[in-house]
Amino acid sequence: MHKNLADDGWFIINGMEKSYSDPERYFSCEPGIRKIAMELYEGIRHLGIISPHSHVDPALFSSPERRFGNPAELFIIPDHYVFRMLYSQGIPLEALGVATLKGEVTAEPREVWQTFCAHYYLFAGTPTSLWIQDELAAVFGINEQPCAENAGRLYDRISEALASAEYSPRALFDRFKIEVLCTTDSATDALSAHQSLKQGPWQRRILPTFRPDTLFKLPSPGWKNALAKLGSLYGKEISSYKVFLEAIEERRAFFKAMGAKACDHGVLNPFTENISTEAMEKIFQRALAGTASNEDYANFSAQMLMEMARMSCEDGLVMQLHAGSLRNHNQALYERFGADMGADIPVSAEFTRNLRPLLQRYGSTAGFRLVLFTLDESAYSRELAPLAGHYPAVKLGPPWWFLDSPKGMERYLDATVETAGFYNLAGFNDDTRGFCSIPARHDLWRRISCNWLAKQVSRQFLGLSSAKEIARELAYGLALQTYGLSS
Amino acid sequence: MHKNLADDGWFIINGMEKSYSDPERYFSCEPGIRKIAMELYEGIRHLGIISPHSHVDPALFSSPERRFGNPAELFIIPDHYVFRMLYSQGIPLEALGVATLKGEVTAEPREVWQTFCAHYYLFAGTPTSLWIQDELAAVFGINEQPCAENAGRLYDRISEALASAEYSPRALFDRFKIEVLCTTDSATDALSAHQSLKQGPWQRRILPTFRPDTLFKLPSPGWKNALAKLGSLYGKEISSYKVFLEAIEERRAFFKAMGAKACDHGVLNPFTENISTEAMEKIFQRALAGTASNEDYANFSAQMLMEMARMSCEDGLVMQLHAGSLRNHNQALYERFGADMGADIPVSAEFTRNLRPLLQRYGSTAGFRLVLFTLDESAYSRELAPLAGHYPAVKLGPPWWFLDSPKGMERYLDATVETAGFYNLAGFNDDTRGFCSIPARHDLWRRISCNWLAKQVSRQFLGLSSAKEIARELAYGLALQTYGLSS
Amino acid sequence: MHKNLADDGWFIINGMEKSYSDPERYFSCEPGIRKIAMELYEGIRHLGIISPHSHVDPALFSSPERRFGNPAELFIIPDHYVFRMLYSQGIPLEALGVATLKGEVTAEPREVWQTFCAHYYLFAGTPTSLWIQDELAAVFGINEQPCAENAGRLYDRISEALASAEYSPRALFDRFKIEVLCTTDSATDALSAHQSLKQGPWQRRILPTFRPDTLFKLPSPGWKNALAKLGSLYGKEISSYKVFLEAIEERRAFFKAMGAKACDHGVLNPFTENISTEAMEKIFQRALAGTASNEDYANFSAQMLMEMARMSCEDGLVMQLHAGSLRNHNQALYERFGADMGADIPVSAEFTRNLRPLLQRYGSTAGFRLVLFTLDESAYSRELAPLAGHYPAVKLGPPWWFLDSPKGMERYLDATVETAGFYNLAGFNDDTRGFCSIPARHDLWRRISCNWLAKQVSRQFLGLSSAKEIARELAYGLALQTYGLSS
Repeated sequence: MHKNLADDGWFIINGMEKSYSDPERYFSCEPGIRKIAMELYEGIRHLGIISPHSHVDPALFSSPERRFGNPAELFIIPDHYVFRMLYSQGIPLEALGVATLKGEVTAEPREVWQTFCAHYYLFAGTPTSLWIQDELAAVFGINEQPCAENAGRLYDRISEALASAEYSPRALFDRFKIEVLCTTDSATDALSAHQSLKQGPWQRRILPTFRPDTLFKLPSPGWKNALAKLGSLYGKEISSYKVFLEAIEERRAFFKAMGAKACDHGVLNPFTENISTEAMEKIFQRALAGTASNEDYANFSAQMLMEMARMSCEDGLVMQLHAGSLRNHNQALYERFGADMGADIPVSAEFTRNLRPLLQRYGSTAGFRLVLFTLDESAYSRELAPLAGHYPAVKLGPPWWFLDSPKGMERYLDATVETAGFYNLAGFNDDTRGFCSIPARHDLWRRISCNWLAKQVSRQFLGLSSAKEIARELAYGLALQTYGLSS
Repeated sequence: MHKNLADDGWFIINGMEKSYSDPERYFSCEPGIRKIAMELYEGIRHLGIISPHSHVDPALFSSPERRFGNPAELFIIPDHYVFRMLYSQGIPLEALGVATLKGEVTAEPREVWQTFCAHYYLFAGTPTSLWIQDELAAVFGINEQPCAENAGRLYDRISEALASAEYSPRALFDRFKIEVLCTTDSATDALSAHQSLKQGPWQRRILPTFRPDTLFKLPSPGWKNALAKLGSLYGKEISSYKVFLEAIEERRAFFKAMGAKACDHGVLNPFTENISTEAMEKIFQRALAGTASNEDYANFSAQMLMEMARMSCEDGLVMQLHAGSLRNHNQALYERFGADMGADIPVSAEFTRNLRPLLQRYGSTAGFRLVLFTLDESAYSRELAPLAGHYPAVKLGPPWWFLDSPKGMERYLDATVETAGFYNLAGFNDDTRGFCSIPARHDLWRRISCNWLAKQVSRQFLGLSSAKEIARELAYGLALQTYGLSS
Repeated sequence: MHKNLADDGWFIINGMEKSYSDPERYFSCEPGIRKIAMELYEGIRHLGIISPHSHVDPALFSSPERRFGNPAELFIIPDHYVFRMLYSQGIPLEALGVATLKGEVTAEPREVWQTFCAHYYLFAGTPTSLWIQDELAAVFGINEQPCAENAGRLYDRISEALASAEYSPRALFDRFKIEVLCTTDSATDALSAHQSLKQGPWQRRILPTFRPDTLFKLPSPGWKNALAKLGSLYGKEISSYKVFLEAIEERRAFFKAMGAKACDHGVLNPFTENISTEAMEKIFQRALAGTASNEDYANFSAQMLMEMARMSCEDGLVMQLHAGSLRNHNQALYERFGADMGADIPVSAEFTRNLRPLLQRYGSTAGFRLVLFTLDESAYSRELAPLAGHYPAVKLGPPWWFLDSPKGMERYLDATVETAGFYNLAGFNDDTRGFCSIPARHDLWRRISCNWLAKQVSRQFLGLSSAKEIARELAYGLALQTYGLSS
């Protein structure tokens, strides 16, 4: 991955050169740990993939003829991890083929790919480089790193593959051994892609997830549109908080009928509070009138999380809460390109006080499950592991976003397991928009968690046979169980 | 410790199976580090135990006939580390033999023990599993892990042992080689257990610690009772702040006469402030009248910490400050079972600004010692180590509570030593309610700190002979010195 | 470094004793990692030193006859890392030769040195011990650790060396292979030392850095003096905000003409905000009248950071921002000895929200560079790496102050690289007042970063040839590039 050469050999303990797809990659070079890590990994590498939280478009699987686009569309244009890094080094999004809100696209896919490959060295040390290498090697059989020189050749080779039936999304779904794939869908989505999959001959477990964020963000420009859409789906104008709640309950029931196992919420702070129905009705009316205040917004969101918990206690949908991302930090970029442009920046997040009202009310309710995600690692040992180690409802989601990386995973396990144990963790989520990166992401987690367990075994903190069971739980069992996917 | 089997072999670098009481356990499997760690540990493993901060009940030692109760009473019912984890997995406290505030107990000890053993796999990866294994092996000679199958047999074996004179608290005190044991006692405790020990034939160093928290928490329901108790001990109604201070000074003098070396304070935030005596008198009167505000409470607590520092400068009691635990997060549980039910959850803690008034006034006073404890690891390198590396009074308490674990200890040493050095650390505290876990907890600290030092030596950051001295300081010397226990 | 002996052998993996200047020191003892680390280090150890941020006094180089003072003046009196630790153990600053504000000095240099050596064991585990050992060995050829016994002998030996031409600052500058040395200079400094160097025969790259902090701190006692000095340099009374800005622009132009590549700002919080020129003018007038409020101060500072960014966009000076140190925590010490007495204590720092106004306006401006430094490690992965991984302007400064240590460096690389990559890092700064410690500090960074990279290579996260390039970037290239020093 260096600047000037097309390829790069691995150097490891015994002096042998290894390729990117070396079966022992990412394990400690200490022989004692490495041996145990390999043994643990051997026991789980063949397990199918449980993907309880992703952002894959279900329409990808709509027909056997469906194909992925070109290499730029597959690897670069939709991936904010990729263009974020290139942007940070002065490459404008226009040069990366990202469309403006007006729909302008000013770079050809082949140019975009060339720019990406010429700057591939920037990804050294990041998980993006590991995912891409694994994807290139395992999916496309390419065992070299992208660079300016090989860009054209790689483009042709990947393009050719993508056009073939063997590389159709459906074919890859099976080749990747995906057992369950949960998508993330707006609460006001009609789920037509899911519906047609459900009715068609290609039966796979591709399940929707209920994401009502826009409906809870009163001051957002899209709120009224979302409300109108909700009303049209519900067949009734959403003119009161009462109707609003009813409509949401109806949507949840619909998602559940469509196979949903979970709902998902993204908030800046996980603030929850008991706000009376009367007060909520007033806030709702102010929001309709366009006179809601910042405090109204905060209280509305706080109570809606309470309502979501209440509904989850009733309908069994697992409640996922992602906290701490300040969205669209770069205003000019947001105005030109819209959201999800790699400019979401984390802030510190407080869980102990903010979640207290919700947990006091629902945290010990049998069957309720609240999966917490953070971008603020200081909360792991201080707040999240103690909460998960007490409340029956709380499970800790895996390291998220910037933290979905080898060291991010190791710090997560380091900081949470001693207090929460393994059985209060939620297993792994890939959280990806890039369908082809799913196996790479799960495999990275499996390798890192096996290596982490091997270190524990090598220091006699854990027995080998326990570690084998736990490796399987981390790779497979905990996700199944947390999201109620075994049934 | 896996779910389905009764036992579990260890797998280590040379392929040999090891038992739980393997003498080399918890050291790195890297041969270079391991060898040094063993050498360091050999130099300190025989040292007696200095326990300057524990929650052991002194009445345990009241007579040679005194025995521990049954295995459930020894290992489960008083240990919030244990029932917290079981509760988090849906096992109600009732099933664990925990008494409600009304005194209801609904499970038999043998049932409780069976439930615990059947769920012992939940503790995999936690320090609780290490302590329990060590306790079982070293105290009871049991070299197998609890599980559903062996529960009854272990229960009988432990019960039988506990009934014997060899397992009396007094016998174990000597077997554990405890040189000093400091208990934690309410400021209004008459210290009768300590007094009878002092007058009896069994002379050991079991010293009280002055803990006045309840007296400083104005809005707590128990404040007036505590005040009444203080008045009755002082022989004078506590009708003014002036008398309050006098009574506290008298109690401190009494504790000191009874052998106390330290006082101990638990606060949510370590807020200190200079509040005038006049203002304090007014707050005190408002508190008596039941009209004190939240601000009054904060200011009262802040000034009382200042007073404690002042008194410590005068009487030499070491001031311990434990900050950052939000107590009784789970209200329903608190109402049914009371405090210390495993539902205390940390919050972030600020030391730099909060302690400034206190440290400006007393931080450089000769002989004054302030030992700081945190549950917020982000403060280690940012605030605590810099404070300890400047103010003569400040010493850093060992990793506390959730952080009293192998990785917690390693992160503590990683984050503090480079800035504060070793000689501004306070050594180790076990902070335990479980008397029988004292040797296991100290041994874990000794092993982890020796392994940590060995890594430093192996990278040539530290010489071996220095490391040997420092290992002894961390295990023994620093605690003696910090708490003035050598005399 | 232990208490009682003059010397201390190293013990390493193969059982060989090693001296302090062992060429393989600080590398992992794991043979696989060690071999790679050595290979990486061999490729960069001979590189010259780029020092883009230091506090060295440029007058040191004013003439070939200039010499350093005695050993106490070289190692102890100016080094707050050193006397901070000794003060924390009860040694008063008076005993360390530190002058009071009134100019009183009460200890002889030889006594000071004796006290330091007798307490040298306190530095065990700190980077100070590594720097001093390296300095003693590499600069003075002393391969033993200071202690009470050898203090006098070492004093004589170092004194003798310092008197010789070989040890003149100019001779050491070349011996240290310093290619560029940037000093830090008050905005109102006339830069006469730099000017005379520029005109003299000894041509080296010793460049000033523009530091206007005092001019932006309205409530500080020195503000009016600084303003008067600025006015006198500008040749015009600074009676309005408008003239203030003009004068600052003129000073920046002067610094730039004198070779400056950067400006430097120290703030408690990195608060930035868009304050109108009118509002700033009013604040400025209130400040002149002595009626400015705390809010005025905060807003003034916030807008001045905006102005500095604007000017940097115009004149190309790299903007350095050091946030999070609460200065002069110990008031009594400050009143007696002044600033920089080892009593600056960090606080938590927030970057995401605070820097948003500045980054929205200037964060994507071509050519603008903002180098961020923190003392709050929790911000590394949460805020700083994501900001650097998005905004073209943002580069991450190396671990600063308390964090300029082996573990501090490792945590920095661990927490930032996976998100920001290597090419958004700013390389290394020594930030030192101690000229003779420059090689030791750079060498420590080089060793630790090579060892860190070696671990990455050993786990196959990075190829060896990439690691070689990156090692060179971290040691040399990134600093050159970030500060525009290659031209």
